[in-house]
Amino acid sequence: MIFMNCNFLIQKIFRQPLSKMYSSASNITSVHFEEGIKKITLNDFKTRNSLSIAMMQNLVEHITQDENNQELRVIVLAAEGSIFSAGHNLKELTPEVGRSQHEEVFKLASQLMYSIIDSPVPVIAQVDGLAAAAGCQLVAQCDIAICSNISKFSTPGVNFGLFCSTPGIPLARKAHRTTALKMLLTGEAISAAEAKSSGLVTTVCPSEDLEKEVKRTCEAIKLKSRSVVELGKKFYYRQVDMDIKKAYELGGGQMVENLSIADGKEGVRSFVEKRKPRWSH
Amino acid sequence: MIFMNCNFLIQKIFRQPLSKMYSSASNITSVHFEEGIKKITLNDFKTRNSLSIAMMQNLVEHITQDENNQELRVIVLAAEGSIFSAGHNLKELTPEVGRSQHEEVFKLASQLMYSIIDSPVPVIAQVDGLAAAAGCQLVAQCDIAICSNISKFSTPGVNFGLFCSTPGIPLARKAHRTTALKMLLTGEAISAAEAKSSGLVTTVCPSEDLEKEVKRTCEAIKLKSRSVVELGKKFYYRQVDMDIKKAYELGGGQMVENLSIADGKEGVRSFVEKRKPRWSH
Amino acid sequence: MIFMNCNFLIQKIFRQPLSKMYSSASNITSVHFEEGIKKITLNDFKTRNSLSIAMMQNLVEHITQDENNQELRVIVLAAEGSIFSAGHNLKELTPEVGRSQHEEVFKLASQLMYSIIDSPVPVIAQVDGLAAAAGCQLVAQCDIAICSNISKFSTPGVNFGLFCSTPGIPLARKAHRTTALKMLLTGEAISAAEAKSSGLVTTVCPSEDLEKEVKRTCEAIKLKSRSVVELGKKFYYRQVDMDIKKAYELGGGQMVENLSIADGKEGVRSFVEKRKPRWSH
Repeated sequence: MIFMNCNFLIQKIFRQPLSKMYSSASNITSVHFEEGIKKITLNDFKTRNSLSIAMMQNLVEHITQDENNQELRVIVLAAEGSIFSAGHNLKELTPEVGRSQHEEVFKLASQLMYSIIDSPVPVIAQVDGLAAAAGCQLVAQCDIAICSNISKFSTPGVNFGLFCSTPGIPLARKAHRTTALKMLLTGEAISAAEAKSSGLVTTVCPSEDLEKEVKRTCEAIKLKSRSVVELGKKFYYRQVDMDIKKAYELGGGQMVENLSIADGKEGVRSFVEKRKPRWSH
Repeated sequence: MIFMNCNFLIQKIFRQPLSKMYSSASNITSVHFEEGIKKITLNDFKTRNSLSIAMMQNLVEHITQDENNQELRVIVLAAEGSIFSAGHNLKELTPEVGRSQHEEVFKLASQLMYSIIDSPVPVIAQVDGLAAAAGCQLVAQCDIAICSNISKFSTPGVNFGLFCSTPGIPLARKAHRTTALKMLLTGEAISAAEAKSSGLVTTVCPSEDLEKEVKRTCEAIKLKSRSVVELGKKFYYRQVDMDIKKAYELGGGQMVENLSIADGKEGVRSFVEKRKPRWSH
Repeated sequence: MIFMNCNFLIQKIFRQPLSKMYSSASNITSVHFEEGIKKITLNDFKTRNSLSIAMMQNLVEHITQDENNQELRVIVLAAEGSIFSAGHNLKELTPEVGRSQHEEVFKLASQLMYSIIDSPVPVIAQVDGLAAAAGCQLVAQCDIAICSNISKFSTPGVNFGLFCSTPGIPLARKAHRTTALKMLLTGEAISAAEAKSSGLVTTVCPSEDLEKEVKRTCEAIKLKSRSVVELGKKFYYRQVDMDIKKAYELGGGQMVENLSIADGKEGVRSFVEKRKPRWSH
């Protein structure tokens, strides 16, 4: 992480965006941060990109560490190889390792999910293969999920005695509930097409177009004001599980607050004046 | 509105349904109320049917003013031209007009949404073009939305610095959440087909069949008892964001109450006696 | 029921699974319990498989009575004939029978729904025809719903003065809300294809494949640990209507608890040791 912090310093000193390509200390992820897009690639093929303690710490660190860096505009979670992530590392969940480590694993998993919800920038899952168990949870928790048409999604924990209860949390909020229940109770995978039709993923495209489609979506987000996106994302998560009338009660105040920040003012002015907005982010 | 009130008086005096075609004072909507169906048509092409203060007041007035008129059985919100509504009028949301007017705009917008939720009759959106921002919110808030296959839906506020936070409230409850988030964060439009597959709209049909399909749906609703529809719609909105067991606790009482009203009794009797019901509405 | 209890005794005495095919006292259902799968078939053609008081009592009894029987692994609700169930028996809901019986009917209906939610094993609806009103509610409340492509689903209570308020509870949680509202307000049926695309059912297949598809799903569930499925199903219903952060707060503890039960330990061990798990259920 020292290398990264250096980069951050260099960036501050020279006040210019850097293209940064580096692997994390442990080499289980690689991170590429360039022109506002931070792409975090799971790269631990030998554990099928399992969400081991080390992997989860690594992801939380990469997702959160630039959150106050105005250069950061969008985060992409991707993976090397045909497995996006196979979920938790079960070797860390055996009876032998003991209850306190089990608690640690799931505390960290929640922290990882919160890091996505609480990130000021949109987090996009880029999936080109199998996302299983907590790997499927990770996809379901991302704001946007773009996958190739060969991708598959499953919550097979029940097959090895560990029901995918936490993966079921974002899954049942994104996908149709009956599809979520079938996945949870049978352990069966769904195709990319069913993931799309049931609401789990945003977009499906051929594998060869996946990078391009993710890039296109990132560029669309980069045209926006960072502070407006942050405000909007935060309110979305606040209102989405509420009673609708309570949500509306808060919604008006949210809009007024949005209009009072610098980029809210600039955006409306630019629209009325028929010119491009100049965001201060 | 005086013209309308006159009509209402004439109707009361002569006790016969009237066909009423008139434009509102300001000409930004036209209203046609005939045989139980009140069709409110947004007709302010020069502002792209924007939900200006005047337009929202106008809509609230037309949606609510006949709510105790037993002749009213269903409301249709439609629009002249290729834009259903482009959302709020940003000229009314500039920094110059000031915070208190911003508050007024969003208070009125919530009032408009509540007028749909609280209307005793079903409110149908008839869309044949673009519904954007608060225009998309209006569609998402309607009980039923029927659109032509050339229609498009978007929440592009983020493009001009005003995140579509309030449109996101009904949008994320109707459409798949990941589709809602993509729309909110990227500002990109979805097609009528995706609006259907993601749950935002009820029905998609060719433009030339749109009137017919809306009419057919209205006629189906008109065959029902007004008081039963009112009771049912009210309970639907009460239960839909609740914990399911809490909803069931209330549900039994709701059904018993339904059976105790005049048209509940008549309906069950008519079914058992194998005849058409005679509603008192 | 005596016959059944006998069977249960015989089963206990001889400690071998029995194939049990019998009709209930009243002959309105038939139950076949073999190799872990309890199939309850509605068989009251003359009332269109109505959910009469007798039928609901019968279903609650069959769904709950083996819940502590370790042999029970999955319940299937099916029906003889082309009508899965037409909903409540309106003859039991006339004004003449009186309010206290109306209350009894809906109390029993809620009990039936709770018996599905609270069942320790997955409950699958197998539909090959029309599921209407409370019959549609029954399908929507099942954990998994598999239907033939000729099936239809409707909530037509509004046609005879009794709005399908309670059917709307699981319907609006499974299906797209706008589809649910259209069904509730117009009484119109949706096809099997729309039931699938809107999230009401899990799987659609040709009628001739329906038995096979249900069987396949049951067999997938039977490979799991009964206690793990029970734990997971219970938590699913606990978390699904909660605020997501509250759900995650509870989720970690749930996973740790899952790891502490016998089959949680065995499952993880078997996975690490690359062998099949030996469940104690």
